[in-house]
Amino acid sequence: MTDTIEKPASAALSPQARVDAWLADFEAALAVRDVERVVAMFAVDCFWRDLVSFTWNITTVEGRDGVADMLHARLAETSPSGFRTREEPTADGDVASAFIEFETAVGRGTGHLRIKTDADGKDVAWTLLTAMQELKGHEERKGVTRVLGAVHGSDADTRSWAEKRADEERALGRSEQPYALVVGGGQGGIALGARLRQLGVPAIVVDRHERPGDQWRKRYKSLCLHDPVWYDHLPYMPFPQNWPVFAPKDKIGDWLEFYTKVMEVPYWSKTTCLSASFDEAEKHWTVEIDRDGERLTLHPTQLVLATGMSGKPSIPTLPGQDVFRGEQHHSSAHPGPDRYVGKRAVVIGSNNSAHDICKALVENGVDTTMVQRSSTHIVKSDSLMEIGLGDLYSERAVASGMTTEKADLTFASLPYKIMHEFQIPIYDAIRERDKEFYDRLTAAGFELDWGDDDSGLFMKYLRRGSGYYIDVGACDLVADGTIKLAHGQVEKLTEDAVVLADGRVLPADVVVYATGYGSMNGWAADLIGQDVADKVGKVWGLGSGTTKDPGPWEGEQRNMWKPTQQENLWFHGGNLHQSRHYSLYLALQLKARHEGLPTPVYGLQEVHHLS
Amino acid sequence: MTDTIEKPASAALSPQARVDAWLADFEAALAVRDVERVVAMFAVDCFWRDLVSFTWNITTVEGRDGVADMLHARLAETSPSGFRTREEPTADGDVASAFIEFETAVGRGTGHLRIKTDADGKDVAWTLLTAMQELKGHEERKGVTRVLGAVHGSDADTRSWAEKRADEERALGRSEQPYALVVGGGQGGIALGARLRQLGVPAIVVDRHERPGDQWRKRYKSLCLHDPVWYDHLPYMPFPQNWPVFAPKDKIGDWLEFYTKVMEVPYWSKTTCLSASFDEAEKHWTVEIDRDGERLTLHPTQLVLATGMSGKPSIPTLPGQDVFRGEQHHSSAHPGPDRYVGKRAVVIGSNNSAHDICKALVENGVDTTMVQRSSTHIVKSDSLMEIGLGDLYSERAVASGMTTEKADLTFASLPYKIMHEFQIPIYDAIRERDKEFYDRLTAAGFELDWGDDDSGLFMKYLRRGSGYYIDVGACDLVADGTIKLAHGQVEKLTEDAVVLADGRVLPADVVVYATGYGSMNGWAADLIGQDVADKVGKVWGLGSGTTKDPGPWEGEQRNMWKPTQQENLWFHGGNLHQSRHYSLYLALQLKARHEGLPTPVYGLQEVHHLS
Repeated sequence: MTDTIEKPASAALSPQARVDAWLADFEAALAVRDVERVVAMFAVDCFWRDLVSFTWNITTVEGRDGVADMLHARLAETSPSGFRTREEPTADGDVASAFIEFETAVGRGTGHLRIKTDADGKDVAWTLLTAMQELKGHEERKGVTRVLGAVHGSDADTRSWAEKRADEERALGRSEQPYALVVGGGQGGIALGARLRQLGVPAIVVDRHERPGDQWRKRYKSLCLHDPVWYDHLPYMPFPQNWPVFAPKDKIGDWLEFYTKVMEVPYWSKTTCLSASFDEAEKHWTVEIDRDGERLTLHPTQLVLATGMSGKPSIPTLPGQDVFRGEQHHSSAHPGPDRYVGKRAVVIGSNNSAHDICKALVENGVDTTMVQRSSTHIVKSDSLMEIGLGDLYSERAVASGMTTEKADLTFASLPYKIMHEFQIPIYDAIRERDKEFYDRLTAAGFELDWGDDDSGLFMKYLRRGSGYYIDVGACDLVADGTIKLAHGQVEKLTEDAVVLADGRVLPADVVVYATGYGSMNGWAADLIGQDVADKVGKVWGLGSGTTKDPGPWEGEQRNMWKPTQQENLWFHGGNLHQSRHYSLYLALQLKARHEGLPTPVYGLQEVHHLS
Repeated sequence: MTDTIEKPASAALSPQARVDAWLADFEAALAVRDVERVVAMFAVDCFWRDLVSFTWNITTVEGRDGVADMLHARLAETSPSGFRTREEPTADGDVASAFIEFETAVGRGTGHLRIKTDADGKDVAWTLLTAMQELKGHEERKGVTRVLGAVHGSDADTRSWAEKRADEERALGRSEQPYALVVGGGQGGIALGARLRQLGVPAIVVDRHERPGDQWRKRYKSLCLHDPVWYDHLPYMPFPQNWPVFAPKDKIGDWLEFYTKVMEVPYWSKTTCLSASFDEAEKHWTVEIDRDGERLTLHPTQLVLATGMSGKPSIPTLPGQDVFRGEQHHSSAHPGPDRYVGKRAVVIGSNNSAHDICKALVENGVDTTMVQRSSTHIVKSDSLMEIGLGDLYSERAVASGMTTEKADLTFASLPYKIMHEFQIPIYDAIRERDKEFYDRLTAAGFELDWGDDDSGLFMKYLRRGSGYYIDVGACDLVADGTIKLAHGQVEKLTEDAVVLADGRVLPADVVVYATGYGSMNGWAADLIGQDVADKVGKVWGLGSGTTKDPGPWEGEQRNMWKPTQQENLWFHGGNLHQSRHYSLYLALQLKARHEGLPTPVYGLQEVHHLS
């Protein structure tokens, strides 16, 4: 009876009142370090995802036992406080959702909370996201704390900004060692480089290309981003309002170059890493590099591989590749259609690159056959934008008050374990909406799938990083036979043809291997050695037990943006969204170490697969 | 009695109700083309400033006669409607202020309104700003209407974005003539070029330097912007949150260079205009140019001189300049102190450049004398930021909800005729706040002024574009004698000294003429001919009748961003704020003409001064 009076039915309270009450209880229980009391405030099927703020890791604990284990290990030292909402919570049925903020002993965080009412009528946490945003005493200088620029008053240092920059560039990597070396200067390396610059962590981003953005410029000429502009903003500097929805590759290349310069990212172009080894005694790396012909040895404390989760081409070894007299190359080296006009192309593979390349080839009059080796997931771009991304990343979302920051927090708040449950209805709706389209594709013999559990594109991306095409027109060309379709594995190449397992012979002047990419720890093997690659294990994937993502369940993306089994070795990358979002958490982990803060890692991931 | 009931005392109504009532009456009177009724809704001492929307001009009509004259000429054709507030109006005493929007027959506009209660208790307009924002049917593509980028579906044009850009660049100025030629590619030309690009007006921006931004990079090395970041944003792409308050020259140069690239401004570097003449029959210009050694003839319809309101160095002719054995140059060519260490410098002038240059020289150990020829207005940078700009352009303004657009509209809403009345209290407050500072300067012999009417820096800028220094530290060096001070006109130079009118001899190894810049129509004289320069007359200034700004009263800046007496010749420029703000109105005027819309100019300015 007393209980009933003290705890009125949640339904009678506003979402704000429910969330405020839960946060107040939560904070009180945390303050007295009463783990059991905290745990009792969570649902049995709860998820607490932490980005660096409690765990110095990117980790999701699942269920009450998971919460208890993490808190026993980390509560005292984290010393969290100040939990409050950032704006008015919303409710969807029984579930109240809130953007929150809080602080810890060493930092300030934001997050997201979903509470629901349990069988006793009590509000319990279903999902909680806690995400470090800045370290106390090491805040980035922006807005009111931005630097002055001009020196007001008399200045003992008479060098100009440009002279100081030049001096710094001359010293970096020679008289001054970088604390962090970021290998790979695509959007991942650049975004991380910008964050580290803002945080005052001495770093160099090295890249083998002539200039920033070439990672995009050098791809096949018809390439445009498959993700829309609202999803793609880099940190600090959003794209302008007139930016195309799907930016052409050269335009995004120019933007990355611009961004690198404006954000003052220390960036070495035309630089190749030759080898790297970790000195256990000195606790730093020795990295041999070639900078535009000059050999240098660097000694960074931290080594970040940002070489691209789609960076290491995977080309099948096939009999006859040595006798084939035409041209053959991986999709990543495909120049576009111009030099193949009037010739015959065979494109092996049926995912994004294969479709893009085939479309450009046939539009230029090249006789083109796509070889589908296994089923492919297809989504029309406009359906994906509208149904899949529209609530968070669209002009509609912007108009409704959604910001990139809030969208990213919302996205990050969905536990990977149940994310597919949110995704399946989206793809059910898309299948319904575009039924005629899928029927035509099937009639043309194209083999479709929707992922092992019908959860569609984004889960495929997170689990295996492959297996789909976002349709921007190639499917119509497949359906009407303009792009010819063949099926099965490739048996061999002859002097002038590709021969399939069923004996079908595809005459070819050029063969394009749109056969995907290997795990990022292949880069670690090349650069550091197979022993270290095996020590850190497979990169990417969730352990979902679906195709190409073997279990056990990991809870987070393997090895991405967080400590690995190799001390001071990190992996960074992904699409523009991930490069923006996770670069913050990786940068904060590096900053904390650079400042000598204790960073005890909770839940360091175990290795279950080598690649 | 009836009247009293229908018109309750304004004080009893909310600002929203007052403004709504006034706008409704205004719209009704406009709708029936009842000019007298409209005029009666304005105060006797009213101002209506129009940027392109009613007048195809930038003009302010003053008083009821002015309003009546403009409306008789323009009301019917303008056909305005849809007046409404954009957000809740505010009140300061009796004056209610509102951001408004409206449309005309051909466009959509925003604006600003101040109403006050007259002696009869009726609300009347004190100031009205009407500003065209876009032309119907020619809206810029941004936000929901942004371009797709990727081509979805089959594409007959198989060129990539980069190939189309390259083709366009090859054709422009050769097989395709630009509609507008913008001479000068500093912030003014670049901002205008970006606007024209977005509006689809074929244009070329030409500039003599190696690359965009060199206009800043090539100035003296200690130069930083004197205006703060919030005041300096370019169109479309604001500076990021970490941008310095006062950006160093090389950093702003880099920003301009990449802005030009990202905004796809057609920009020809290393290009000099040799001559230009207007063909009255063909209604286009013939412009001879040298593009990196290649001679080309262009035939633009519109010619815009964006060569800098501080672009044409003014160097006094002095006896002995031919015998002086040291180095002598204008401040715009001053490289910075490095090569003068251990030498003696005489800097003639006592405004911004003189102070900046002297400060850098003495900080590098150069023996430096500043020659003050006339009194100078000094304001400390932090006082100017806090008291002068803080309400509109500051982090404080941003935090209170002020946007760049609203700040610009507010700023534009203040009629030039009474702007000094708003400025005088600001400088009274600054004089009080920094009394000790000014006392020290005076004690050191520095001659101060506050403008003819004590209205301070910004009015000096608008009236004459000179006569002040925003102090960032040089004044302390003047006050303590580190920078030596001399007074009076220069009589002559000798082999090794500057001799002043009072006979004082200043030994010199280098003489810097920090002597300002000439009127922008000097560029017209050089390029087109003295006859055209005289036809358009003096550029800049308000006709305030104060020093260096002779009357009669013009009401607007002479010849800037609006039609001139020379058909199809325009002047554009000013600081970053003006380059951002007025580039829109100039671009819309050019766009309308490019589309063949009727653009009858109301109140084309007369010429009262040749330079």
